[in-house]
Amino acid sequence: MFRAFLFFERGERVENHQKYMDLAIDLAQKGRGQVNPNPLVGAVIVKDDVIIGRGYHEKYGGPHAERQALAACTQSAAGATLYVTLEPCCHHGKTPPCTEAIIDNKISRVVIGSTDPNPLVSGKGIEILRQQGITVITGVREEACQELNTVFFHYIKTKTPYVLMKYAMTLDGKIATHTGKSKWITGAEARQAVHQTRSEVAGIMVGVNTVLQDDPLLTCRIEDGKNPSRIICDSHLRTPLTAQVVATARKIPTYLATCSRDQHKIKRFEIMGCKILAVPPAGDHLNLQELMVQLGQKGIDSILLEGGGTLNFSALKSGIVNKLQVYLAPKIFGGAAAKTPVEGPGLEDPAEAFQFTDRKIKSFGADICLEYVKR
Amino acid sequence: MFRAFLFFERGERVENHQKYMDLAIDLAQKGRGQVNPNPLVGAVIVKDDVIIGRGYHEKYGGPHAERQALAACTQSAAGATLYVTLEPCCHHGKTPPCTEAIIDNKISRVVIGSTDPNPLVSGKGIEILRQQGITVITGVREEACQELNTVFFHYIKTKTPYVLMKYAMTLDGKIATHTGKSKWITGAEARQAVHQTRSEVAGIMVGVNTVLQDDPLLTCRIEDGKNPSRIICDSHLRTPLTAQVVATARKIPTYLATCSRDQHKIKRFEIMGCKILAVPPAGDHLNLQELMVQLGQKGIDSILLEGGGTLNFSALKSGIVNKLQVYLAPKIFGGAAAKTPVEGPGLEDPAEAFQFTDRKIKSFGADICLEYVKR
Repeated sequence: MFRAFLFFERGERVENHQKYMDLAIDLAQKGRGQVNPNPLVGAVIVKDDVIIGRGYHEKYGGPHAERQALAACTQSAAGATLYVTLEPCCHHGKTPPCTEAIIDNKISRVVIGSTDPNPLVSGKGIEILRQQGITVITGVREEACQELNTVFFHYIKTKTPYVLMKYAMTLDGKIATHTGKSKWITGAEARQAVHQTRSEVAGIMVGVNTVLQDDPLLTCRIEDGKNPSRIICDSHLRTPLTAQVVATARKIPTYLATCSRDQHKIKRFEIMGCKILAVPPAGDHLNLQELMVQLGQKGIDSILLEGGGTLNFSALKSGIVNKLQVYLAPKIFGGAAAKTPVEGPGLEDPAEAFQFTDRKIKSFGADICLEYVKR
Repeated sequence: MFRAFLFFERGERVENHQKYMDLAIDLAQKGRGQVNPNPLVGAVIVKDDVIIGRGYHEKYGGPHAERQALAACTQSAAGATLYVTLEPCCHHGKTPPCTEAIIDNKISRVVIGSTDPNPLVSGKGIEILRQQGITVITGVREEACQELNTVFFHYIKTKTPYVLMKYAMTLDGKIATHTGKSKWITGAEARQAVHQTRSEVAGIMVGVNTVLQDDPLLTCRIEDGKNPSRIICDSHLRTPLTAQVVATARKIPTYLATCSRDQHKIKRFEIMGCKILAVPPAGDHLNLQELMVQLGQKGIDSILLEGGGTLNFSALKSGIVNKLQVYLAPKIFGGAAAKTPVEGPGLEDPAEAFQFTDRKIKSFGADICLEYVKR
């Protein structure tokens, strides 16, 4: 009711801005899994209420969304409006600044979703455009545009990966039966969604116990899906040289994070193609915060943590978890001895519990996925 | 789109029937917790599209909804339409048959939600009305009307209580921290909802371990809420005579279900006001199916099972569970030694898992409640 009375200059309704920004957001999504550690960005160029160009950031190192949209224009962009999900860059990175291209192409107005938290850009792109007499409107679909780049914003600020902890459990909180069987808990649709997530992250992390028990490949099993780098938390280098992750380490980047300084063992893993990350201990586990710093330095901006109970507890305890995905299957295993998703020593008092917020519920056939942000 | 073209006789749209039936359903709901083991029934009387009377079954043994609505009529019901959620009864029970009252009051049309599965009624009420030249329309909001009386329909068919298993857990499947602390997992809104449920069931059931550990009262803590009868599953009569449930057994019916034949012990509980149910053993637990038969004979049509892991597993294994409510709090306790909601020996293979269906999700502040029907 209220929105119908909101007008911008030139008599346009806010709905129009939102419509074009939504399109830019859809375009941005297409780059998911391809641009890390760059942000997802989409752009639409509109002249006289007709879309004359559209583009998105397709690939890390490739041209930015604004330039893609300008290159795709079916007519001169002079006097047109550019909708872009993220503030245009104004610095020389792998590509020249987008602000230059906008000015050169005589765009008369720029509508921006979210501002760039990158200290090299933040607000400066907007400033440069305004100095050139270009009208700049900010904050259109801001929340959705920010959510598009949760990972990027986290990485640019902390220089460590955004960690998504994921597990699948029964309605009684079991990740396997008491005999250790876990195939399958969730149905095909939920498992497909997990492979989609794998294709969108830079790294996938498990503990050595998972390698010893399941000997997983940790690859993305969807067509044209990108395999994330594999990170094995293995304090004492107990990963077998015969493990599938080791055997395929030449094809898919594989990191063994360890406290071990056994050069003989390390050498053998390196010959197989594994990369060793020397991490100091923290209690009887790895220092996960330090590991995140090292992974961040290697350009890994996002991690899907598919740990067992021990690693999951350490991850929460060390504060590296940013997001949680709980897949819940409508079944019950029972069993006092059956494994649960977060174990380790555990917390003593309910008041100390790890807290989560911003709940989202998604449905995958009979299963659901509960998604939360770590508080 | 389709519904707009559905007409009944006299040119009335189906929406009108649904509207009045929805009102009857709302009225029926008011009897929840008061009428067990009778069904919930609501009735609305309409003449020339004006409601002239409404009523519901308020109290076990009291007048039926149809008679309440007729008594409340602001003008003669002759020629009017009666909307009723359940097929009117045609037998002499605690009250005379409603079909008689409908005929005597010259109601010309009866619109029915669901037919009565009670073999004393089923279809016969409709038959009698039609024989008197009364128009009978059935199946309006049938699903909602059936759902209103899931408990009644189950009880009338099986003569055993409808069992709702309920627990509150964290996102990692814990019902307490590893030190045994469970206050609180969910927030005030969810706990209030549980007390509401307590007021709506005939019985609440726990295991002796819960009595030993928490010494609960198992009462309904909402204003004017009815306390359910308490049932303690206690194979070896380990309930302390000093337990709160024993101390208050004269005020609130309290059953101890046991395999013990220790007459001395039994006597002492009976002196305190407890009722002893002698139940044969099944393995190292009570025969819960036999217990359900005994409770059914005592008029207990519904049970809220707030068991711990051991009793919950036995209940699922014995097949007495009809419905599941999982309250999920957005927090994680961790802990390999922390208790989970369903324990016991557990199942061996994921393919054998207890299965649930008909998912409903409700939100209570930061918590959610997942509700399923046992397959």
